[in-house]
This record gives sequence, C-alpha cells and structure tokens, in this order.
Amino acid sequence: MSSKKYAIGIDFGTESARALLVDLADGRHVATHVYNYADGVIDEYLPGTKIRLEPDWALQNPADYVRAVEITVPQVLAASGVSPDDVIGLGIDFTACTMLPTKADGTPLCYLEQYRDNPHAWVKLWKHHAAQPEADQINEIASDRAEDWLFRYGGKISSEWFFPKALQILNEAPEIYEAADRLIEAADWIVWQLTGVETRNSCTAGYKAIWSKRIGFPEPSFFAALHPRMRNIVAEKMSTDILPLGARAGGLTPAMAQATGLRPGTAVAVANVDAHVAVPAGTVVEPGRMVMIMGTSTCHMVLGNEQKIVPGMCGVVEDGILPGMFGYEAGQSCVGDHFAWFVENCVPYPYYLEAEKKGLNLHQLLEAKAAELKPGESGLLALDWWNGNRSVLVDVDLTGLLVGATLATRPEEIYRALIEATAFGTRIIIQTFEDNGVAVNELVAAGGLPERNKLLMQIYADVTGREIKVVGTDQAGALGSAMHGAVAAGAAAGGYDTIQQAAAKMAHLQDKVYRPIAAHKAVYDKLYAEYVALHDYLGRGSNDVMKRLKRIKAAALQQ
Amino acid sequence: MSSKKYAIGIDFGTESARALLVDLADGRHVATHVYNYADGVIDEYLPGTKIRLEPDWALQNPADYVRAVEITVPQVLAASGVSPDDVIGLGIDFTACTMLPTKADGTPLCYLEQYRDNPHAWVKLWKHHAAQPEADQINEIASDRAEDWLFRYGGKISSEWFFPKALQILNEAPEIYEAADRLIEAADWIVWQLTGVETRNSCTAGYKAIWSKRIGFPEPSFFAALHPRMRNIVAEKMSTDILPLGARAGGLTPAMAQATGLRPGTAVAVANVDAHVAVPAGTVVEPGRMVMIMGTSTCHMVLGNEQKIVPGMCGVVEDGILPGMFGYEAGQSCVGDHFAWFVENCVPYPYYLEAEKKGLNLHQLLEAKAAELKPGESGLLALDWWNGNRSVLVDVDLTGLLVGATLATRPEEIYRALIEATAFGTRIIIQTFEDNGVAVNELVAAGGLPERNKLLMQIYADVTGREIKVVGTDQAGALGSAMHGAVAAGAAAGGYDTIQQAAAKMAHLQDKVYRPIAAHKAVYDKLYAEYVALHDYLGRGSNDVMKRLKRIKAAALQQ
Repeated sequence: MSSKKYAIGIDFGTESARALLVDLADGRHVATHVYNYADGVIDEYLPGTKIRLEPDWALQNPADYVRAVEITVPQVLAASGVSPDDVIGLGIDFTACTMLPTKADGTPLCYLEQYRDNPHAWVKLWKHHAAQPEADQINEIASDRAEDWLFRYGGKISSEWFFPKALQILNEAPEIYEAADRLIEAADWIVWQLTGVETRNSCTAGYKAIWSKRIGFPEPSFFAALHPRMRNIVAEKMSTDILPLGARAGGLTPAMAQATGLRPGTAVAVANVDAHVAVPAGTVVEPGRMVMIMGTSTCHMVLGNEQKIVPGMCGVVEDGILPGMFGYEAGQSCVGDHFAWFVENCVPYPYYLEAEKKGLNLHQLLEAKAAELKPGESGLLALDWWNGNRSVLVDVDLTGLLVGATLATRPEEIYRALIEATAFGTRIIIQTFEDNGVAVNELVAAGGLPERNKLLMQIYADVTGREIKVVGTDQAGALGSAMHGAVAAGAAAGGYDTIQQAAAKMAHLQDKVYRPIAAHKAVYDKLYAEYVALHDYLGRGSNDVMKRLKRIKAAALQQ
Repeated sequence: MSSKKYAIGIDFGTESARALLVDLADGRHVATHVYNYADGVIDEYLPGTKIRLEPDWALQNPADYVRAVEITVPQVLAASGVSPDDVIGLGIDFTACTMLPTKADGTPLCYLEQYRDNPHAWVKLWKHHAAQPEADQINEIASDRAEDWLFRYGGKISSEWFFPKALQILNEAPEIYEAADRLIEAADWIVWQLTGVETRNSCTAGYKAIWSKRIGFPEPSFFAALHPRMRNIVAEKMSTDILPLGARAGGLTPAMAQATGLRPGTAVAVANVDAHVAVPAGTVVEPGRMVMIMGTSTCHMVLGNEQKIVPGMCGVVEDGILPGMFGYEAGQSCVGDHFAWFVENCVPYPYYLEAEKKGLNLHQLLEAKAAELKPGESGLLALDWWNGNRSVLVDVDLTGLLVGATLATRPEEIYRALIEATAFGTRIIIQTFEDNGVAVNELVAAGGLPERNKLLMQIYADVTGREIKVVGTDQAGALGSAMHGAVAAGAAAGGYDTIQQAAAKMAHLQDKVYRPIAAHKAVYDKLYAEYVALHDYLGRGSNDVMKRLKRIKAAALQQ
C-alpha cells in the first residue's frame, strides 16, 4: 500500500521531450526518460519529401509530441515502479511560441493528405524566424495606431511570436489559413490531445499572443489593419477563454490512458512555458526574487503585485507566471551562445593542446585562466550584443563590441570580458526593473550555465551586488510541470491547492550561495559605468553605427 | 679593367646588420651579407653579468656594430669579386633614436671597466621604453612653456627619443651623465668609427632630437627647466654642426680600411635612418608621393617644399629626408603587429589543420579566406589602436576596438576588419596631410608587408582611393644607404652629385600597381565615415573610456 502520491511533468524542448516522475511530498525525482523527436527540427526538407524550406524556417512534426507522451510516460512508470493509481497529476511545459494550424477537432493540417506538402501546414517552431517581415509590419502598424499593448512588450514584438507566424501563413498560404479552424500553441495542442478538451493558457497567450487578462486580445480593427481576412482571427481561430496556470484542463482521455498506462481522468494542468514554469520550481512564488534561466540565452523573470510599465522588457502578463500576480519577463539573447562562439572561433591552437593535456574542455580551460584575473585587470570591456539586444533596448540590429584590446590581450581576457558583459547586461535589466518599481533583491539561477561555470556565477554576484542562489534541480522545467500537475489535481486528491504550497514542499535550492565580494563590486561599478555609457551611445541612437554596418553588409551580400 | 663603380650600404637593424654592394649604374644588388648581433637586444641581463635590467629596458653593445662592419663588408667584397678600387662610397642607416654615452674620443663608456656594470653606460636601443616618465616631464614642461617646437612634432614627443633617454641617464646615473663627453646617436657613432670624424646628421637630429635647421635645438633655459645640470647639454655633449643627408662625413680611416678591405679614404656619407633612407630608394625625391614603410608598424613619409604644421604627425624636418626639402613623417604603431597578434591569439584549431593541409601559413590561409569577402560584407569595423595611436592622435593610451560582431562572425572577417582598420588609419593620415597643404597623390609601399599580403595592398588602394606602387627591392634601407654613399663620393668620382640623380638610376619600382576599384572605394567611403566618427568620439575626448579602462587595469595590477 502507498499513501505516497506522484505527478509527472513533461518538458517539451527543441530537440526532445523529457518526462519526470516526482514525489509530491518533497519533489524527489523518482524517474525520468527522454525522447528525441524523430523528425527533430525540420529546417531543410519536409519529412519524406524533396520540398525544400526557405532560410530561417524551422518546423516540427506534431506527431513527435504525441509519441513523446506515449513513450516517456510508460518508461517513467516502469522505471519508478509507482502505481498509476498514485500518479494524480500531469503537467506539461513547452517551447513557445511554437504553433500550428488544425481542424476543429484538433487534427493538425499537416496530418491531412491535401495539406501535407505545404510547409505552412506544419508546426512553426519558436525559432522559425521567417516571419520577420510580418513582425515588422505588426510593429509599424501598432506604433502608428499607438496601440496601448505595445508598452507591455517593450515597444516591439518579436518575429517568433504568434501573430507574425499567423500572418505569414495568411500571406504565403491563404488556403492553409482558410482551412485552419484553429491556430494554436503546440503547448495547448498537446494538452488538447491528452484531455480531449481545447484550452488556452495565460502564459503563452500573454507573452506570445498579446493577450491581457483585463483587456483581452488586440481589437479586430487592429488585425484588419494587418490584413482584411485577419480581422476576426481571435473569434474564428483562437479562444478568449484563457485559463490561469495550475488550472485543471481536464482529465486524461481513455485513449491516452491506454497509451500511457496512467488512469483515465488523471488531472492534466493547462499548458505552460519551459522558462516560466521554472520560476516556482526555483522556489520563487513571491515578488523580489528574480529567476534567471541561463543557457544559450538568458530569460529573467520576476513577480509583482502590480502592473508596472518597465521599458524594454519582453512582457508583463497578469497570471503569466503565477496566478494572481504579474509576471515580468526580460531577456538577453546571447549568453551561453557568446562563449560557444568564442570557443569555436577565437581560441588558438596551443590552448587546445593545453586543454587536452589537462583533460579539460576549452570552456573549462578558459574559465580556469580567466579566474586568475582580477576584475578590471584585462582592460577590456564588451557590449554583449552578438545576437542583438532583447532587454532593455529591444533591438535585434545591435551587434557586439569589444574595446580595450592591446597587443598583450590574451584569449582568456576576452572570454572573461564577454562573461562580464553579459553580467552588465543583467545588471541593466535589474536596474531598469527597480527604477520602475519592480523589486529585485535576490537572484535565483537555473539552466545549464550555473552548473558549468562557477566563475560566471561569482562575476554575476559581483557585478549585480546581489546574492545568487541556484535551483536544486537540473530539470526545473519538468519539475515545475509536475508541480502544476499536482495543483491541477488539488489537495483533496493528495496534491496541492496552490503553486505556492507545491513550491514550499517540492522546490529546493542548492546550499551554495554566490555572495558579492565588495572589492570586486567596487571595480565593477566603475566598469559598469563605462558599459552604460557605451550601451546608451551605441544603443539609443547617438551613433547608429551598428545598424549602418548591418545595412552596408546587407547591400554587400546582395551584389 | 672596369669602368663600373659600386657603393656599399649597411642597414643596421634591431637584431642584425646587412651590407649590400650595389652597382651604381642601375642599382643592381651584386652581393649582400647579414651579421646577427652577438649580444642582440639586451633586455634581461647585461652581457656576461648577473645584472638584471628593469622592465621596458632595451640595450645594445656598440661592439656589435663594429663587428657588423668588419664582417659584412669583406663578405660582400669577396662574394661580388668587385675590386675595392671600384667601391667609391659607403653609407649607413640605423634604427633611431638609438643612442649612447662616449668619451671625447668616441670610446663608449660601456667599454670602460669602471662603467661597464652600469646599464646606463650601454647603448639605449630605439625600443628602450623606460624613459616614459622623462618623456612625460618633457612634454609637460614644453607645453607649460608653450615651446614652439612642440607643433613640429604633433604636440608630443616620444619616450623613444633622444632627450628623454638622456634625461633618464642624468636622473638615474648622474655619474654616467657626467662622465659622458658625448651623447650621440649610434648612427653617428658608427660613422665616427668609420671616418675618425664626429658628425651629426640632420635626420636623427631633426626627428629624434628636436633640432631644426632654422632654429636649432631648444634653448638652454628649456633644458634647465628639466634639470639644472642639463642646461648646456647641447654645448657640452652634442654638436650644433648638423650635416645634410648625402654629405660626405669623411674618408674611411686606414684602420677601418685594413679591417674591411676597402680603400682608405673611401667616401663615407653622414648617417641616416632606416625608414627615411628608404624614401629615395623607393624613387621618391619630390613632393606628392608618400612612402609607406610597412612592417610591424608603418612609417609614412612625404616631402614638401614648404613647412606646414600638420596636426598629429611625428615630425617635420627640413633636410630630414632629402636635402633642400621638408620631410614629413607620420606613423601607425600597430600594423603587422596587429595581424601577428590575431594569428597568435585568435585563430581556431580547425584553421591550423586546414592551413597545414593546404601547405599555407595561417596568415596566408586567413588572407585567402578574407579575399573572398566583399568590402562591407563582414559587418565589422575596427579601430586599429592595439598599440595606441601614433598619428594623428598621438596617444599611446588608446586601445583597440571591434564593433559589429555577431554569432556568425568568422576569424577571417575579423582579420580583414583589422587590415581595413589600418587602411582607414592611413587614410586619416593622408587626409590630414592634404587638409593642411601637403599633397599626397600616390603611395609607394616598402617593407615586408607589401610582399606578403596582396589583399592588404588592394584594400589600401581601395580605401585611400590612390594608386599604390611597390618598391623594387626588399632591401630599401641598404640600397638607400648605398645611394647616399654614391652621393658622398660625388659624380667626379663616378658617383652622383645629388640623391635625385642617384635615385633616377638606382631606384626602381615593381611593375605591379594596385589601383583603386571604384565599387570597393564607394563601400569603403561609407565605412570610413563610420571609422572617423568612432575615431573622433573615442580618440578626441568625447568618451575617454579607453584611458579609464587603462587606469582601472593599472589599479587592478597594483593590488
């Protein structure tokens, strides 16, 4: 007999999905299993065809998501030995905006013979960047119309978001747009497949589809200004019934129960987003503590009790991270990617030999060498814009800068300067939040980077002047999803009634705390002042050299 | 029988000296020989002692210069089979300012037992940089006194120059200063050894010792302001009898004739400087054509009929390059060094493998890859200040900058951006000359780089919008010295009466001409505008971030 209860979280990533079965009493990770999508990221040819995709396209096959459920859930059940009777909830989180067109019954258009050969019938993955013209058009028209919602998104929306992708379908494949009874986030679609009920969640709606709890979606006149046939997109192809996170979307269908080994009717939470679900998994359920999901890029999330307009954030969404609170999101578009670029392009041969000899990888060697430097010793300063600036400038056309190089400059000095630059970028984000009434007293780090680079963590503490704690799991997404599954089940069923209660039991931090070193902070304050001066000079229009260089480059490539 | 006449030029470099025996009829290189200085550059211990030198010191042993003459001249005579009777002239060029203290008879103090252990008794090589405090003091006092001569040197003199080095001797080793009957350029000292006559040449006096033909040296009151005992340095330890280039310093002494195999009384020209002597060797004996000696750094020289004050040049000296004309010198302190730094620090492992496979060195591989890029295609722009800026900003505290980097930036793009940056630096120098009335219609390149990097030459043509010709010899220094030897001998002896006449016969250009490509020039005009904007913003005081980073660095290193 077992009074112990469990939930399963499934974290749908870019290349794979991971199921995690956790103990509701303490969040213990009992079993996990990963499924690599058979069709992965589709960016060259439509599967099984010679239909070539344009540059910047990135699609997926929704069948992979269903397979992921059907393969990983039985595996974690089997590996754990837990009885399906004791698995009381299921939650999922997903990349976003990852969206697809379906029929009214949820059938993806790409499943249908007549549409299968049209790339627009497939899932557009978050990193499908081919809708930039549509995003530009949306931003221009929204700006011309002085749409209030622009302020909630730092004045600009991204080509990755829902409506640019929808408009691209309409522009390039109007027959697909017509045939789509629904346009839906893959996150919500997989919950639909699990429960048989179409739901929409407040996180993707708010952060990716310009929805707000109090105002709803933009008005039909705005969509009509984009394209006449888009006027009623919300009424025709979406839903205005947006559920808060942790809500019960429905019970597992008998067919899905059959496929997974779980019980029919098992509570399924509404969908969530991979980064946002990591906030409660990082113990953060109250204002004042910022969660940084640090990987190739960094996503910063913080909660507030009021809506403040903070310039240059990615979005503020009521119920967007936790029900009843305003979730603020900001981001840096190039963090781990920075270091990966450097290691791939800028590390000389002798360093390879030295790393090999010491049994280190190049990141580890550079970290070890960079750790021997004092703050300020390199004489270098960088602007961390190798992939544009997401917050607080919201400008993809900004580029990277390094200043202070001499003939004595060594690779580890540049490496450290790049780390410092991303830390300065985070400090500007924190400062902008605080300047606009959103407190950030402490940092909680999640993601791959905090585990891999302790120097980086200390530099972030020194630069921001804040303590940094590290999430206790390397599966924050799946854990957060399982927590939401437990909330969807509710306390009466052996789960929790609120995400706060779930977090109090199931979420943990590591013992290690990175504390700012005062002497380092003092030097970094000086460097930060220099960073801000260059940031504003090159990022706020005093000298648009970066944009002009991009235009010169584009012209050169067209010749 | 032989009516053919010859001259020998000896080019005293940093690590070695090269003798070249040339045919006076056409400048043909008949024989050459190189002697590597036995004591080389002395920058760790005084030879044969455990006396350790301070950082930034760089000394030489004057005995090496004599050995160079005694070894190389017999070798070229032997190798050529030319009769000493037909060698009518000898010229030398030297690094500068490379100076030493001697007794009244020319004996170096370091030859004397009692002074040998004192580093200040030895030759201070041009790149001895330990007299920076003295240079700072000189510049400050000169500026306070509004010394007129400052304008002739871009407002600042370098720690490499004569008086900072002399003042360092006085400050740190007053007994050496006292014991020195003469303080003299090594260039003039070796001519003294050859002829038995002490002479001083207008090139080193003008460019390195603040001498002007019309005004002479700075006044005693200026020197007294530096140090009371320095008041009469010119009268006591130097000479005010400054000879123009090509003048006959004297005839070879019997002892030197014995040692070299040349005839006693062979005409010896007054000394010259390695860069400056390359101007007539590059066929340039008139205004309007700029010679660029391109190696680790670049020296730009152009002639004029009038004295113009051009901001930020290294110096303007009447008779400094050619008798009867004003010689203008400007410079870039980091050219080949730039690319060497990049290759050493920033080229990834796969490029090493590719270079090896293709049988190229890394420079060649990067050049080949960079040559495939169109102007502007990289989206990058650099400020070429990895080693400060010599002209036109005259500021050693400026540092390097790279802007425009993205995650797609590749090493060859950075490499090309560094080449372009040095070309933009040259264009600013040209523009500054022209804006101030010194014409620069054509460029003539000498030195190692033009031979090694054809992409670089084309980029310079495209960026400057000027044709570039290349000197016909890779021994421009030694050829120019031999030409001056021929002028010292005179036409009556089978030489020439003027350097113009010598150049007309003996100096040649290669057939290859680099011509600006209009489409490239158009793109580079846009990039140059961006370069100038950043150059002025960061180099002229709008944002002194580079200097502040250096101060932060210095403070970090002192902890």
